[in-house]
Amino acid sequence: MTAETDHSNANAGRTLISIDAMGGDQGPAAVVAGCSLSAKANPDIAFILHGDKAQLDPLVAKRRELADLCEVRHAPDVVTMDDKPSQVVRTGKDTSMWSAVESVRSGEASVAVSCGNTGALMAVSMIRLRKLPGVNRPAIAVLYPSSNPQGFNVMLDVGADIRADADDLMRFALMGNSYVRNGMNIARPRVGLLNVGTEEHKGRSELKVAYDLIRDQAPTAEYEFVGFVEGGDISGNRADVIVTDGFTGNVAIKTGEGTATLVGNRLREAFKYSPLSRLASLLAYTSLQRLKKKIDPRRVNGGVFLGLNGTVVKSHGSADATGVSSAIKLAAQLSQNRFNDKLAARVAAALPAEEKTE
Amino acid sequence: MTAETDHSNANAGRTLISIDAMGGDQGPAAVVAGCSLSAKANPDIAFILHGDKAQLDPLVAKRRELADLCEVRHAPDVVTMDDKPSQVVRTGKDTSMWSAVESVRSGEASVAVSCGNTGALMAVSMIRLRKLPGVNRPAIAVLYPSSNPQGFNVMLDVGADIRADADDLMRFALMGNSYVRNGMNIARPRVGLLNVGTEEHKGRSELKVAYDLIRDQAPTAEYEFVGFVEGGDISGNRADVIVTDGFTGNVAIKTGEGTATLVGNRLREAFKYSPLSRLASLLAYTSLQRLKKKIDPRRVNGGVFLGLNGTVVKSHGSADATGVSSAIKLAAQLSQNRFNDKLAARVAAALPAEEKTE
Repeated sequence: MTAETDHSNANAGRTLISIDAMGGDQGPAAVVAGCSLSAKANPDIAFILHGDKAQLDPLVAKRRELADLCEVRHAPDVVTMDDKPSQVVRTGKDTSMWSAVESVRSGEASVAVSCGNTGALMAVSMIRLRKLPGVNRPAIAVLYPSSNPQGFNVMLDVGADIRADADDLMRFALMGNSYVRNGMNIARPRVGLLNVGTEEHKGRSELKVAYDLIRDQAPTAEYEFVGFVEGGDISGNRADVIVTDGFTGNVAIKTGEGTATLVGNRLREAFKYSPLSRLASLLAYTSLQRLKKKIDPRRVNGGVFLGLNGTVVKSHGSADATGVSSAIKLAAQLSQNRFNDKLAARVAAALPAEEKTE
Repeated sequence: MTAETDHSNANAGRTLISIDAMGGDQGPAAVVAGCSLSAKANPDIAFILHGDKAQLDPLVAKRRELADLCEVRHAPDVVTMDDKPSQVVRTGKDTSMWSAVESVRSGEASVAVSCGNTGALMAVSMIRLRKLPGVNRPAIAVLYPSSNPQGFNVMLDVGADIRADADDLMRFALMGNSYVRNGMNIARPRVGLLNVGTEEHKGRSELKVAYDLIRDQAPTAEYEFVGFVEGGDISGNRADVIVTDGFTGNVAIKTGEGTATLVGNRLREAFKYSPLSRLASLLAYTSLQRLKKKIDPRRVNGGVFLGLNGTVVKSHGSADATGVSSAIKLAAQLSQNRFNDKLAARVAAALPAEEKTE
């Protein structure tokens, strides 16, 4: 049913990761540098790099640690950030993105990573990998820095689709639960449903229906349903999985990122204000670096597309080598945990009887 | 049509502000302290304080600057944070909140301020003040710290209602525009419509309709429509007014507040890490205080209910004296600018011809 079977024989037992090397804001050099960082950190992975061979071969040749770990697969075209998803689906067969997803479809790689255009990547992934049985809408799940023990929550959907009905939200809860269990090794994740208040009578009608559906799945799917949560809980410690529709989730992560950037900029201005504050900022340098590292979005880089026959990790478009490497690390971990098979089983278990027999 | 006529003769030409002195988390002492701060800063205002006379009289008597500026109006009951709005509407006639709104309805005060339960305050305001002609849904507008010249954006709705159709969103644009013109003295505010992307083809169908409606009102209402904006623009410099439905707006502000708190906590942890970082934090003390002041939510405290026959300012439930005083300052400025009359005229001007003749 899924492409998570072990195809790593070709590369000495290693987990093969399919990489779209083009299409990120920083170009293929940053992607190859990210592969290089990952190869040094993890001896169990190897890569298929998709993109312009004339550009990629020299970049790979410069990295001794990538010798014998990288197969470069030529794809002449690139999906740009401005390309419309529908256009890419029609005419994008020669792009590095399409080629990267194709490697997961064929089963030669178990997971694909791309820094490219999110909408196009979702459209290509949908059309080539197809949805898992029982999934009506796939979702994009991201890690959001939080005050819970693991340091971040998983939120989904953050923009695969702008809609979600009660049934979709229940499946998001199941998929998010699988992701946290396999991506973070938490045995019994806490799942919360995003709303404008925590009282049961509040919010849109589909949320009240979803509340009951998610609560009813909790014992079988082995999560704890903490009920409705609010925007403040996305960075808090009430839940490990935040379930919402793609419109709300997308606005929420962008609002949070923007606010964190604003606070960071104001912090820098405050430290530049006077000679004394500039001295203080010198002395505080290591403290501030420590802070930056802790809330660095590059270290939790990687939105995961959930609900497809195969795993696709969307790295941030502006990701540098560190960001690409984080996305590869996540991809490798999910692949090695046979995450997508487990997710498929969870969703299938929640299917009504008549759908299961299809 | 509105209650903005000048009733200040009773107090020597002063702007009379109706204050719900009970119902905030910090009790009436914080509210009276806030009135005291405001009275010192602004010689043109006076107060009607609603609440338990036995508690309020001694608090007022202790503040010499409030002598002759405060009328205490006895209201025996208090709306708690847990009271349901529908219940307060039915049985809340003896509460300080009801009494505070009633002073605006009767016209003796031009604006009311309350730190109490938001849902109840909106319900009481709706039922006593009634909606302005042409307004289907009132909205709550808040100030959100941003990188634009004035240091914050106005966002609405943030939770008066969980829904908004295209027509409501257009009226939110008109109301937000009036608010920024009168509350911040910006002649031609930039108005943006919150969506998940800035391309015109993106987002929910009602947003595409709202896009056209808001664009068409721009020349008459004298704002600049900047089109769709994203979550990151709420704290950015693309717009002065962010228009959205109450569900999305509520999630966005709570997400932003939560994220700013998380960053602040992490900053404190980083500075506590080692003896050197603790020394740095001592030296950085004034810089950090400066930052805190700049992003202090107490200094931009006050959600304003827009679209009613009268102005109601909702101060944060946990507001201390500084927070209450900020809300009073905003209330006074809006009242002195005859804001609600201007807003009513703007909304009336956008009415279709057949509705205008009603």
